[in-house]
Amino acid sequence: MATVAVFGEILLRLAPQAGASLRRAVGLDIHVGGAEANVAVGLAQLGHAARVISTLPASALGEIARRRLAAEGIDLTHTGAGPGRMGLYFHEPAAGPRGGGVLYDRAGSAFALAQAAAYDPASALIGVRHLHISGISPAVSEAGAEATLAMVAAAREGGCTISFDGNFRASLWATSARNPRDVLVPLVAQADLIFGNHRDAALLLGRDLLGESPRAVALALFEAFPQCSLVASTRREVEQGGAQFVGARIDARDDFAEADEVGLPHIVERIGTGDAFATGVLHRWLEDPTDLGGAARAGVALMALKHAMPGDLPDFTPDDLYGAGADIQR
Amino acid sequence: MATVAVFGEILLRLAPQAGASLRRAVGLDIHVGGAEANVAVGLAQLGHAARVISTLPASALGEIARRRLAAEGIDLTHTGAGPGRMGLYFHEPAAGPRGGGVLYDRAGSAFALAQAAAYDPASALIGVRHLHISGISPAVSEAGAEATLAMVAAAREGGCTISFDGNFRASLWATSARNPRDVLVPLVAQADLIFGNHRDAALLLGRDLLGESPRAVALALFEAFPQCSLVASTRREVEQGGAQFVGARIDARDDFAEADEVGLPHIVERIGTGDAFATGVLHRWLEDPTDLGGAARAGVALMALKHAMPGDLPDFTPDDLYGAGADIQR
Amino acid sequence: MATVAVFGEILLRLAPQAGASLRRAVGLDIHVGGAEANVAVGLAQLGHAARVISTLPASALGEIARRRLAAEGIDLTHTGAGPGRMGLYFHEPAAGPRGGGVLYDRAGSAFALAQAAAYDPASALIGVRHLHISGISPAVSEAGAEATLAMVAAAREGGCTISFDGNFRASLWATSARNPRDVLVPLVAQADLIFGNHRDAALLLGRDLLGESPRAVALALFEAFPQCSLVASTRREVEQGGAQFVGARIDARDDFAEADEVGLPHIVERIGTGDAFATGVLHRWLEDPTDLGGAARAGVALMALKHAMPGDLPDFTPDDLYGAGADIQR
Amino acid sequence: MATVAVFGEILLRLAPQAGASLRRAVGLDIHVGGAEANVAVGLAQLGHAARVISTLPASALGEIARRRLAAEGIDLTHTGAGPGRMGLYFHEPAAGPRGGGVLYDRAGSAFALAQAAAYDPASALIGVRHLHISGISPAVSEAGAEATLAMVAAAREGGCTISFDGNFRASLWATSARNPRDVLVPLVAQADLIFGNHRDAALLLGRDLLGESPRAVALALFEAFPQCSLVASTRREVEQGGAQFVGARIDARDDFAEADEVGLPHIVERIGTGDAFATGVLHRWLEDPTDLGGAARAGVALMALKHAMPGDLPDFTPDDLYGAGADIQR
Amino acid sequence: MATVAVFGEILLRLAPQAGASLRRAVGLDIHVGGAEANVAVGLAQLGHAARVISTLPASALGEIARRRLAAEGIDLTHTGAGPGRMGLYFHEPAAGPRGGGVLYDRAGSAFALAQAAAYDPASALIGVRHLHISGISPAVSEAGAEATLAMVAAAREGGCTISFDGNFRASLWATSARNPRDVLVPLVAQADLIFGNHRDAALLLGRDLLGESPRAVALALFEAFPQCSLVASTRREVEQGGAQFVGARIDARDDFAEADEVGLPHIVERIGTGDAFATGVLHRWLEDPTDLGGAARAGVALMALKHAMPGDLPDFTPDDLYGAGADIQR
Amino acid sequence: MATVAVFGEILLRLAPQAGASLRRAVGLDIHVGGAEANVAVGLAQLGHAARVISTLPASALGEIARRRLAAEGIDLTHTGAGPGRMGLYFHEPAAGPRGGGVLYDRAGSAFALAQAAAYDPASALIGVRHLHISGISPAVSEAGAEATLAMVAAAREGGCTISFDGNFRASLWATSARNPRDVLVPLVAQADLIFGNHRDAALLLGRDLLGESPRAVALALFEAFPQCSLVASTRREVEQGGAQFVGARIDARDDFAEADEVGLPHIVERIGTGDAFATGVLHRWLEDPTDLGGAARAGVALMALKHAMPGDLPDFTPDDLYGAGADIQR
Ligand SMILES: [Ca+2]
Ligand SMILES: [Ca+2]
Ligand SMILES: [Ca+2]
Ligand SMILES: [Ca+2]
Ligand SMILES: [Ca+2]
Ligand SMILES: [Ca+2]
Ligand SMILES: [Ca+2]
Ligand SMILES: [Ca+2]
Ligand SMILES: [Ca+2]
Ligand SMILES: [Ca+2]
Ligand SMILES: [Ca+2]
Ligand SMILES: [Ca+2]
Ligand code: NI
Ligand code: NI
Ligand code: NI
Ligand code: NI
Ligand code: NI
Ligand code: NI
Ligand code: NI
Ligand code: NI
Ligand code: NI
Ligand code: NI
Ligand code: NI
Ligand code: NI
Ligand code: NI
Ligand code: NI
Ligand code: NI
Ligand code: NI
Ligand code: NI
Ligand code: NI
Repeated sequence: MATVAVFGEILLRLAPQAGASLRRAVGLDIHVGGAEANVAVGLAQLGHAARVISTLPASALGEIARRRLAAEGIDLTHTGAGPGRMGLYFHEPAAGPRGGGVLYDRAGSAFALAQAAAYDPASALIGVRHLHISGISPAVSEAGAEATLAMVAAAREGGCTISFDGNFRASLWATSARNPRDVLVPLVAQADLIFGNHRDAALLLGRDLLGESPRAVALALFEAFPQCSLVASTRREVEQGGAQFVGARIDARDDFAEADEVGLPHIVERIGTGDAFATGVLHRWLEDPTDLGGAARAGVALMALKHAMPGDLPDFTPDDLYGAGADIQR
Repeated sequence: MATVAVFGEILLRLAPQAGASLRRAVGLDIHVGGAEANVAVGLAQLGHAARVISTLPASALGEIARRRLAAEGIDLTHTGAGPGRMGLYFHEPAAGPRGGGVLYDRAGSAFALAQAAAYDPASALIGVRHLHISGISPAVSEAGAEATLAMVAAAREGGCTISFDGNFRASLWATSARNPRDVLVPLVAQADLIFGNHRDAALLLGRDLLGESPRAVALALFEAFPQCSLVASTRREVEQGGAQFVGARIDARDDFAEADEVGLPHIVERIGTGDAFATGVLHRWLEDPTDLGGAARAGVALMALKHAMPGDLPDFTPDDLYGAGADIQR
Repeated sequence: MATVAVFGEILLRLAPQAGASLRRAVGLDIHVGGAEANVAVGLAQLGHAARVISTLPASALGEIARRRLAAEGIDLTHTGAGPGRMGLYFHEPAAGPRGGGVLYDRAGSAFALAQAAAYDPASALIGVRHLHISGISPAVSEAGAEATLAMVAAAREGGCTISFDGNFRASLWATSARNPRDVLVPLVAQADLIFGNHRDAALLLGRDLLGESPRAVALALFEAFPQCSLVASTRREVEQGGAQFVGARIDARDDFAEADEVGLPHIVERIGTGDAFATGVLHRWLEDPTDLGGAARAGVALMALKHAMPGDLPDFTPDDLYGAGADIQR
Repeated sequence: MATVAVFGEILLRLAPQAGASLRRAVGLDIHVGGAEANVAVGLAQLGHAARVISTLPASALGEIARRRLAAEGIDLTHTGAGPGRMGLYFHEPAAGPRGGGVLYDRAGSAFALAQAAAYDPASALIGVRHLHISGISPAVSEAGAEATLAMVAAAREGGCTISFDGNFRASLWATSARNPRDVLVPLVAQADLIFGNHRDAALLLGRDLLGESPRAVALALFEAFPQCSLVASTRREVEQGGAQFVGARIDARDDFAEADEVGLPHIVERIGTGDAFATGVLHRWLEDPTDLGGAARAGVALMALKHAMPGDLPDFTPDDLYGAGADIQR
Repeated sequence: MATVAVFGEILLRLAPQAGASLRRAVGLDIHVGGAEANVAVGLAQLGHAARVISTLPASALGEIARRRLAAEGIDLTHTGAGPGRMGLYFHEPAAGPRGGGVLYDRAGSAFALAQAAAYDPASALIGVRHLHISGISPAVSEAGAEATLAMVAAAREGGCTISFDGNFRASLWATSARNPRDVLVPLVAQADLIFGNHRDAALLLGRDLLGESPRAVALALFEAFPQCSLVASTRREVEQGGAQFVGARIDARDDFAEADEVGLPHIVERIGTGDAFATGVLHRWLEDPTDLGGAARAGVALMALKHAMPGDLPDFTPDDLYGAGADIQR
Repeated sequence: MATVAVFGEILLRLAPQAGASLRRAVGLDIHVGGAEANVAVGLAQLGHAARVISTLPASALGEIARRRLAAEGIDLTHTGAGPGRMGLYFHEPAAGPRGGGVLYDRAGSAFALAQAAAYDPASALIGVRHLHISGISPAVSEAGAEATLAMVAAAREGGCTISFDGNFRASLWATSARNPRDVLVPLVAQADLIFGNHRDAALLLGRDLLGESPRAVALALFEAFPQCSLVASTRREVEQGGAQFVGARIDARDDFAEADEVGLPHIVERIGTGDAFATGVLHRWLEDPTDLGGAARAGVALMALKHAMPGDLPDFTPDDLYGAGADIQR
């Protein structure tokens, strides 16, 4: 097992209790999340030593986040306290044919305000074999983009491998004057592994990819980003009547593998399922970077399972990688 | 958007909390409902000004109903206080193959006791473009039937259009010596729009309709009720294995339209789904009385969505009419 | 309706509240269960007089069990208090593709410690027409095996018919030096009706049954156990995408019947579904021992319904035997 | 220990969950109560065999009541099913200086509709040593009054002793044309033990008792009711600042005893505290009719304890009679 | 009864569920509050027509606030939607000797961002007899101060009386470069009635008042603010051992009255108790401006009662003004 | 701040949810506790580095304990996994005059089964300045006693100071053939600081101390245990009417100090209050071993506060040591 670090914002999700929409809520459940923290927790549950590098406010809300990640065994030595609010998001639950929604309330958060100088990347990455980042941190603020770049540079310097998950957030970029592609390309250029769909790739490549095959998209990314050796992506199918299935593929420069589609009989959560995919892929890739098929299957297994788990953070065990059957164990 | 009024009884639903049957309940959730109020709330959520004309007891239970409807923006100026109890119903939740049930405890309610003279229909309908009623109010009591008739007469006088939803309640008529057909026909004779299924039509027409096509049933209703210009009805299909689908059709005198069947992957509620259909149809019909297909699709969209919403009252937004996709919005 | 007795351990299930795994639980729901008690409660709900013969600790936990069974109308005259703990099990809920689990904490329970001499079988079976036992009691402890044997002997003596449900619990036998087959065969030898699957039969017959037809297995059991006149078994099918179905068959020595498969659209519970099958079969068999098809259909109807009921104890009504439709009753 | 019977109505209390008033309630807890049932349950918890003679509706609501009393070990053989509703009451919780309230919704209940002929008093009282009734049953309906009278007559005939608890309910008598005194005097005339305060006595004696000493009141009752040998009453004191204390006295014809006042540091419930007093007094009186002081102290101990117990039904153990100290037991 | 308007920010309180501190919270209850809205709701409950003039975001969180105030019957015609977040505060519950706390998260709220021009004071005050404001709105932002000033000017112009509640919020002023006294004096100069304690008066008068009698403080305020005719203030006493009492006084220019101290046996909430005092005083003063004693007693009665009510908004009835006794009503 | 270690068993408390006794519980809240862990958590909250040395089972229940302590920032490096169950206790809540109770279900726990050889005391105490133990671990099992003795010996060897809290548990010793005094004296002989009351001292000294002054008891302990330099004890007073107060004293060999009594207006929890006292005393003593008065006051402040905190684990902040006032902070 490896020591892995992630860099990104930790959020509190506040979500109405079962059966209420947000505008009718009388109470809110608190979940701790954030795409990168979700991956760190998943990797810790699979046996890795996982570190979250971030900034939290020195408030009781910051402590909620800190306590829940500590309970998961996450190393928070390099998550310091800084000025600013706790990043929040409110969750509008899905209801049958209506997809849920997210109401961000994260402007002015301690993470968004934290300058690159607030971190000590070299020290934060001591002993770390792999760094995982996403496209959210650079979208959050200019300071966030600079801090991500510094973290990536230190990782490259220190010999860490790097993964990047697109996680495009239109609503964050909409409030920024910066051009997403300009900000993201220097980051992605350092990544060994890119998680992303057509939309992420189109953004990074600056051109329309409509109708291009997954293989063509992957090859275009490989061309644009010479450091990159793997591209991982998922697909979702919805049958008439509502039954859903997820599958995945992983492309290397001269190979690829697909994972069979898995049914999702009863979805309780969509958030964090992409992070679960990244978790499974990274886990297998850290074990054996040549087993593309195994990485795709591990990613899909965790992704399907996460659909049945409320909240942002996963709740995996190593057995989940191998799809323990549906029989009750007693 | 139009100003719409409904006339009918407001009920409190008391239902066991998740996972318990009624006889094992340790607590009860309180929902506010009633077929006509459900329609008023749905129309208000779609942007209409909605008024509920009714009678509530001057008790804390009556205030529960009054507060929840006020929170939905309903105009309650013409819902007065009268002697009698709060109408209640207890809900036996469905469980897998076992359909749920309703235990009415509404005898002696303030609405049932309210005489026609307790209302001032002309004043209650000032500014109103459309009045919606159902077959429940006349079933509740003789006074209820008389008050409904007076309301319908005032609506006709005042130039309102009128819709009638059958909503046949066998258990209410069973305790009455009155003949349902005798009571209902004079009401339906004033309606421009009839919501009803085969059973409702058979009752109104006084003959068996077994095996007759939906078109034939609609034409028979048009013949019997010259004022009526539209008949709207739904259909439900259950596949082997349990998957359910709903569809609908709307018949005009010389035209008709059908809405495609929509899957119901996970049903949490059956109550109020017919009212959601009426809401969607009325909404589109008030916008454009010639768009039969649009009305049918709007009705089915809301009906399918309501199956995922616990409680009687809907929780719609205008986007729901156009079936916003299942993707999470962030 | 008949007077029926069961002999076996009563357990408390402690299960995380909705949406949490056991390791993240902040609270636990308390359910009362135990395979034999589940059958007794189901039979009581169908109209039989049902008696549970068991031992509970004289503690508040023992009282929880006693109170819930008394609420179901169970006769507990012959469930005494004895030294030892309350038998517990913790429930790891299922989550999508991950089957749930059971963490037994029942060693040293009052039932496990109760010697055969703690019971007065002859007196406990006065007025009883049928005794139901399972393979759990003999697995719990040597004392449990001896007490079961004494109970069975008294039943045979007193003219009761006897049913045996295999319910093999690997984790219990794993902590015992005793050979399950040696212990179980003398018990099963007294049974008129055996509930069991391939695994149970293989254990009892002491040989591999892989690939043998259900009929062949039943005939082998009939040969080995001359007292036995009926063998009842269930089958479960899982379609790609996750849809599940259950069916059943009942074999007599010269006849058999099958029940059609029933879909399980949304499973909330697996525990107690086998007990529900036994309940339905026993109910119909006590009414008419020749109606094999009716018994199989009653068993499957209750088994399918139990999948929608959280907790161990069933919540049946006589209507459930005939599959009351999915329409809401009002 | 004795076999005791009570006759009276069983009610469901529906009460807002903590921190809400009734008009703001979103859910209701269900408690089972009724003054006489409360006494029966308390006596059962102290070791007596207790029987409730009553009528319940044949509905799921009636079953709620039946199940909870069965869980307490109450003998319900003589509580039959009859036409009518379940008697309900809604509870407006107290809030600091504001006393709580009760909103009765019990008109038309199965108990109120049950005619005297619905009961078989002689059979219901077989083996019973003592019968407890209250002034509520005769207030509920004329049929209730007649049935109470028949029950009292059978008790007298059968050699049972009889106790009567005034429990004056102004709101019930307010809806009746009958004169309370005319109805109650024939009942009280059969009682050996009267529980009541100044108001109850004034009603029974038909004159103002303002300013008369407790002893004088008791002597007046003894004079008016020759069968009566004991009068038990409680007193409550509220200090400035809100601290409350309760005490009690018991008068015999030629003796009396008082119990010291007990503090009530944190009151969670007022309902059922009078029934708890009756329980303690009856318990000790059944053990030793001459120990007036012991009966008064037992009554006050249980009354004080009940103030800390939410809901109508008590939750006593025999230790509570002797005021087990405030130390935690471990 | 009068038509009353308040101007001020509406907040959502998010508070841990019972028994948890904020940093350990797993869920949060949602309450709607804000000092001025609390007063409006209280006055509405006492029978006045109450209007809240404010700005809310056009989000689901803004709708939560809007719905709850509509349920209370508040006129929200002049509470518009504006850009910005929903003002939040997180509540750290009190625990025995530890006072609770408030973690404001209201910077950038729609109310704080709303410029004076966003309101139409003349139109908002049509038909209004009295306007209530507090020192919070000018502290929130410069725009808030300007809007308050415009509102006060329009009220004076329109012949409304005006009340001002100090409600000094150190944490809000701490983030502002503005001098509180400079901002507040022009507002207070328009007030007919000032609610405030020593600290509020010292701030407004710009000098230390330590040791000065309440009468002297009131006279100093009268001298500084010629429009002011009444000064109302509360006092709180805590006995050794923890028992608390509240009292109040009201000073006119040539008269004063005091209300007796009232005990607070079990405090569940401190927030909103000052608003409850203002509610009671305003209510009586609007009825009869000369009854100083009645106003003081009404204020204290509601203040004491509010200590027993969780959440910001009161839950009063007119009976509460006269201290309905602690007896349960049935 | 110091690095502190504790050695002792970690337990799960399972307690009925508010308002229910154990026998009526439908659910149980899970708290993590254990006298020594409670002290470690308290010290961590005050700023110390705290380590728990213990043994947990390798089950989901063990993980519950592990996760909650990790969330509190406890170092669990030396809490290993071992065979055996999770130690449980069920909590019977107090109710007014009735003290609560504890139903232990901890026999056969992983801690009780762990042999001394399962620990590496020298390594576990590296960097530790102080070790805290209690009389519970030696009571749990002979292995527990041996492991405690080894831990104490290593602490003495390594130069740690040692504190011992009596925490006599009659129910544990009752199941053991060992003599408590024989077991405890060698442990206490190594302690620098003894927490204990009269009962603890009498047990350790082997003689009746009835009527002896606290000073005399302390001097007797000093004489018997030459290593001991401080004895700390608490006292509790209950006024008529129920008001409670706590105070404390600390004796040195030639000095002593007392802390004033503090009122406990509303007690929600008794468990863990002694541990809170130890926490406050140790905290101040580690800062300044000569400030007896400060240590006593800190102990009483935390003890009083803990009475308002549900659950075993404290929830302190450094401010709590200085009794932050009852005013709400905003
Ligand atoms: Ca996320
Ligand atoms: Ca994602
Ligand atoms: Ca309805
Ligand atoms: Ca309907
Ligand atoms: Ca079972
Ligand atoms: Ca089974
Ligand atoms: Ca009662
Ligand atoms: Ca009473
Ligand atoms: Ca406020
Ligand atoms: Ca205030
Ligand atoms: Ca403890
Ligand atoms: Ca302790
Ligand atoms: Ni489903
Ligand atoms: Ni969700
Ligand atoms: Ni959650
Ligand atoms: Ni609900
Ligand atoms: Ni439902
Ligand atoms: Ni609902
Ligand atoms: Ni389950
Ligand atoms: Ni449950
Ligand atoms: Ni369950
Ligand atoms: Ni109450
Ligand atoms: Ni309750
Ligand atoms: Ni609340
Ligand atoms: Ni209290
Ligand atoms: Ni509070
Ligand atoms: Ni609240
Ligand atoms: Ni708790
Ligand atoms: Ni407790
Ligand atoms: Ni807790």
